[in-house]
Amino acid sequence: MSANSWGNHFKISTFGESHGPALGVVIDGCPAGVLFNEALLLENLKRRRPGLTAGTSARAENDMPEILSGVYQGRTLGTPIAMMVRNLDARPQDYSEIQKQPRTGHADDVWKDKFFHTDHRGGGRSSGRETVARVLAGSVAQMMVKQLFPECAITAFSKKIGPYELSSWPNFSGQLLPAHHYPLGFPAENATEVRDFLIKAQKDGESYGGIAGLDIGHPPPSLGQPVFHKLKSDLSAAMMSVGATTAVELGAGVTSSELKGSEFHSSPTSAHYSGIRGGLSTGEPVRMQIHFKPTSSIMDVAKKGRHDPCIVPRALPVLESMAWLTLADHVLWQRIDKI
Amino acid sequence: MSANSWGNHFKISTFGESHGPALGVVIDGCPAGVLFNEALLLENLKRRRPGLTAGTSARAENDMPEILSGVYQGRTLGTPIAMMVRNLDARPQDYSEIQKQPRTGHADDVWKDKFFHTDHRGGGRSSGRETVARVLAGSVAQMMVKQLFPECAITAFSKKIGPYELSSWPNFSGQLLPAHHYPLGFPAENATEVRDFLIKAQKDGESYGGIAGLDIGHPPPSLGQPVFHKLKSDLSAAMMSVGATTAVELGAGVTSSELKGSEFHSSPTSAHYSGIRGGLSTGEPVRMQIHFKPTSSIMDVAKKGRHDPCIVPRALPVLESMAWLTLADHVLWQRIDKI
Amino acid sequence: MSANSWGNHFKISTFGESHGPALGVVIDGCPAGVLFNEALLLENLKRRRPGLTAGTSARAENDMPEILSGVYQGRTLGTPIAMMVRNLDARPQDYSEIQKQPRTGHADDVWKDKFFHTDHRGGGRSSGRETVARVLAGSVAQMMVKQLFPECAITAFSKKIGPYELSSWPNFSGQLLPAHHYPLGFPAENATEVRDFLIKAQKDGESYGGIAGLDIGHPPPSLGQPVFHKLKSDLSAAMMSVGATTAVELGAGVTSSELKGSEFHSSPTSAHYSGIRGGLSTGEPVRMQIHFKPTSSIMDVAKKGRHDPCIVPRALPVLESMAWLTLADHVLWQRIDKI
Amino acid sequence: MSANSWGNHFKISTFGESHGPALGVVIDGCPAGVLFNEALLLENLKRRRPGLTAGTSARAENDMPEILSGVYQGRTLGTPIAMMVRNLDARPQDYSEIQKQPRTGHADDVWKDKFFHTDHRGGGRSSGRETVARVLAGSVAQMMVKQLFPECAITAFSKKIGPYELSSWPNFSGQLLPAHHYPLGFPAENATEVRDFLIKAQKDGESYGGIAGLDIGHPPPSLGQPVFHKLKSDLSAAMMSVGATTAVELGAGVTSSELKGSEFHSSPTSAHYSGIRGGLSTGEPVRMQIHFKPTSSIMDVAKKGRHDPCIVPRALPVLESMAWLTLADHVLWQRIDKI
Repeated sequence: MSANSWGNHFKISTFGESHGPALGVVIDGCPAGVLFNEALLLENLKRRRPGLTAGTSARAENDMPEILSGVYQGRTLGTPIAMMVRNLDARPQDYSEIQKQPRTGHADDVWKDKFFHTDHRGGGRSSGRETVARVLAGSVAQMMVKQLFPECAITAFSKKIGPYELSSWPNFSGQLLPAHHYPLGFPAENATEVRDFLIKAQKDGESYGGIAGLDIGHPPPSLGQPVFHKLKSDLSAAMMSVGATTAVELGAGVTSSELKGSEFHSSPTSAHYSGIRGGLSTGEPVRMQIHFKPTSSIMDVAKKGRHDPCIVPRALPVLESMAWLTLADHVLWQRIDKI
Repeated sequence: MSANSWGNHFKISTFGESHGPALGVVIDGCPAGVLFNEALLLENLKRRRPGLTAGTSARAENDMPEILSGVYQGRTLGTPIAMMVRNLDARPQDYSEIQKQPRTGHADDVWKDKFFHTDHRGGGRSSGRETVARVLAGSVAQMMVKQLFPECAITAFSKKIGPYELSSWPNFSGQLLPAHHYPLGFPAENATEVRDFLIKAQKDGESYGGIAGLDIGHPPPSLGQPVFHKLKSDLSAAMMSVGATTAVELGAGVTSSELKGSEFHSSPTSAHYSGIRGGLSTGEPVRMQIHFKPTSSIMDVAKKGRHDPCIVPRALPVLESMAWLTLADHVLWQRIDKI
Repeated sequence: MSANSWGNHFKISTFGESHGPALGVVIDGCPAGVLFNEALLLENLKRRRPGLTAGTSARAENDMPEILSGVYQGRTLGTPIAMMVRNLDARPQDYSEIQKQPRTGHADDVWKDKFFHTDHRGGGRSSGRETVARVLAGSVAQMMVKQLFPECAITAFSKKIGPYELSSWPNFSGQLLPAHHYPLGFPAENATEVRDFLIKAQKDGESYGGIAGLDIGHPPPSLGQPVFHKLKSDLSAAMMSVGATTAVELGAGVTSSELKGSEFHSSPTSAHYSGIRGGLSTGEPVRMQIHFKPTSSIMDVAKKGRHDPCIVPRALPVLESMAWLTLADHVLWQRIDKI
Repeated sequence: MSANSWGNHFKISTFGESHGPALGVVIDGCPAGVLFNEALLLENLKRRRPGLTAGTSARAENDMPEILSGVYQGRTLGTPIAMMVRNLDARPQDYSEIQKQPRTGHADDVWKDKFFHTDHRGGGRSSGRETVARVLAGSVAQMMVKQLFPECAITAFSKKIGPYELSSWPNFSGQLLPAHHYPLGFPAENATEVRDFLIKAQKDGESYGGIAGLDIGHPPPSLGQPVFHKLKSDLSAAMMSVGATTAVELGAGVTSSELKGSEFHSSPTSAHYSGIRGGLSTGEPVRMQIHFKPTSSIMDVAKKGRHDPCIVPRALPVLESMAWLTLADHVLWQRIDKI
């Protein structure tokens, strides 16, 4: 597998720098016959777009996707699916100050060491901008999995934004909760208050970490491979491949050692195991929590750099995409388990 | 990549069921000229062996490794390195009861669904027994990385065992702390008390979760790839590929949202970032925490199944091996970054 | 590796149908710091373009490449290099007749079986049009290898076109012979006569097979891996991945059994081994012959389909590109052979 | 994919030096539920064994395979299948002379350059001895494909041995011809004469090249992928990965340019296309010819080295194994072509 590729069967290769001509993806491994849902693609892209929701960064990204190959008359052809979005509103001049003043917490300096010279025009590949390609690919993965397993639903939501945290896991009941209809994807009554909090933070040049919840309802059963490619391993890699993540929890997560085994395993609920046992999906809901550090673009630099005071809300469609990609990969993988 | 393989450049394929003839690994990708340290291999295997340390399971595994290929006159040849250990003390009769009584928390039933019929003789591939192959492979990875980066040191230790937790991160100072010289790899004065606690738990058929700490001192700098193969992503996948894991934290981990950005990023210490920024190693120490649920083999079944009351101590050399494998993979990967 | 991907280290994924919006490639694995030679890219594309040389098909392809990512200020960034060309002159109406009348020797029917429904607009992925993406990628591979091994030169030429065959292997002397300066890449005095022959064949709806010679001068030594990835194996796969190929010969090739071992191995020349021994390049010239069947688009259908009476001349830059890609892959691979 | 691995879905990793402790393979990707035919495995191993048939080398290899994992109660488990044979009759002393006198045509010197130091004990990985692992793996591939496509039959035979050549392609009629019941796998009345010819050649220290025919009857249809993994490309790579091969022909092969297109494509027979069109199998028989150079171990060195005067007869089960592996890979690959 290459550095910018993901998946063993539903494989994607993403490309594009944040301030280069375009970003995109080639999916090599999507079966023929998947109904292509362009509305879904646009909706997912819209959700990760900054500037729409107050409290996220003001960069205007139109992100109109162009389908370059692999789709014809509303279905996938079985050939590679190439998609891209152009970078229209790059404004590299905003970043001129960054070039002189490397930001702690950003990859500016580490990338320079790695690749001789790097593209300072916005962080190159290590910008959050690359995630647009993940959403392009993840949307197709979603189309494929949903066609085979219509009940399967993946919902990411803001579980904690700075000091604000949901009191309990939302009840999705296997259906797609319109979590993203709430401001900041924070499904609580005080979501507007949280938004105002972030707007103020943006003005103050402050930033906050947070927690994203990821709920996979009705996952296809028996996904995962026995040793290294346990479903929990691949999902964790997927989540931790997103920038600014610092921890990932499955089910009981960091509270796993709070119960004795006789208590932990006696429960009829899957909350502790979170729908994955022995590395395989059981078909029960999977619950994950992904932790994010505060964004590093703060103070004066950030004001010009138009970055987010909290990365969690914009990361939600990205996390969902990574989860769809992981499921799609294992759904295909499963086909060669048995004779 | 295949289901039982790991790594993109330093690639391993493991094999073996817990009660089949043998377990082992083929390493396809280890360069020629690595000094083969057989003593290190034996030491690592000894550490994961059950029954040696009071408080771990009583199964007598000799685990004498046999080198089948790839090593000659004390050096690796550049050809595949195949190694195996035979299963001498299998006692499948102990598991006859398990066949009739599937264990909650074990993979017995999920694997049956996946592969038609599965090997009930001890859990097949989903047994902790498969980790012996990881230690075989990880030891060679360790030899390679240490030859190139002698200061690099990886230490896993028990940070929490049931109710007992270390009060702070041990000061490794970039040197290999003999954490495994402490009972249960728990580097604290009350380690013996904790061991007695587990011995009692084993008698009572009780089990406990815990937390392993993983400290990587003096890691090679600039390891990691920009998007999907961030070092933190590959390390997380590595850790979460071990059985019974439920969460993985890097640096500040689940406490990342407790600080404002102005606080989080102002610190000169790398404790928050944990030596990985922009997905790349900075050369500073990397700190991870891996959480484990209580082992599921409890009560009557467990008494006969000779399982561990807490999996953390035995997992330590496995976690170290997975970390070495991940570093080895990226050390080779790094060689093709630049022209 | 995916269906439309090539290479283990210098990896490419191509995309695009012959009558879809665009064709292109993502290179994931090109090191940072390669000097990007856009003139070379344009020259290579021009050589595979139809309609320029009399005797090749009349479709006007402008093939202006667009660099979407991975190149900045004249050098590769180490990030994925995405490139594409738009399909401007598709004329799908020309193929309406083909839809009704499947062509023997074409993939029209076999692809339909494989992927449910396929894109009849010119053969989809199985059209020679897809090779434009190979030339895009191969040109970058050429830049990389040439930067590291300036003397290395790859020349493909028409060795046989229908009844016309070169009397001997041209003497390239390790330098790039301007074989493509001859009509049809046929480096002989009667090249113009051969061209006239093909022009007549095109009018008559007739087609011819032929042989391409491939000469690799001053290849980097020690390329290749011991068992499955012998250099000759990977080169053969590369050549036989091009449409209409029917055989590939290395060195003595199909005449290898004409000499006794005492004769074959006594010669001081490398002509028999062709610069590859034990699966590895020795640094001596490599000579291959690639055989092509007559193109299948003949008679009435072909007249409208604007196809080639002999595929060899247009295949030359494609064969060179595949050879460059194979060398580039092994040049990177070689970097992890030794500690 | 690693240097010693083959296949994208039915993946194998082979190991072992010719004079090390053992040779073997791990198959990671064989589905669960394949009926394990141990008799077939032994029969295939027996066929490649030297010394049994007069005219092949005198080294006594018992090659008793040991199944280390992945098979239980007569079926594959879906877990990795590890198999090995021990090297019992190594006699490294025979090769002491070789160490001092490198053999032209052998890899002795090229491998030394590649890997610093190499194992002179018989050529290490570049010995024909490594093919025993291919036969182990290929036999399992054969079991899998035959279970799904019982009519599929692959037969390799000696088509030419030195000056002796079959006058025509044998009529296999889709059934397994017992070609290997003939001396040297040469299905002709004068097979005994050819054997006597080789016995004399062995005494004289002479060697000969030859041609192997490969007939695939009733192949599964629609195998192959559109661009780089055309079935003909993967089969060619498979054949050319065997030592001493110099050319591979499919169907009309090197005679493809002898006919005009109007002649070539008018024939109702598949002999020209050889059952592969557009890179895909049509279900019709596939015919290939694989050319071998004379073995290089001649004269005085060879007399002690116990090598073959003609490699073709012993290569036959290896070629069959590589073909089975390629089919098995594409049979699994085909499962993810469509939604």
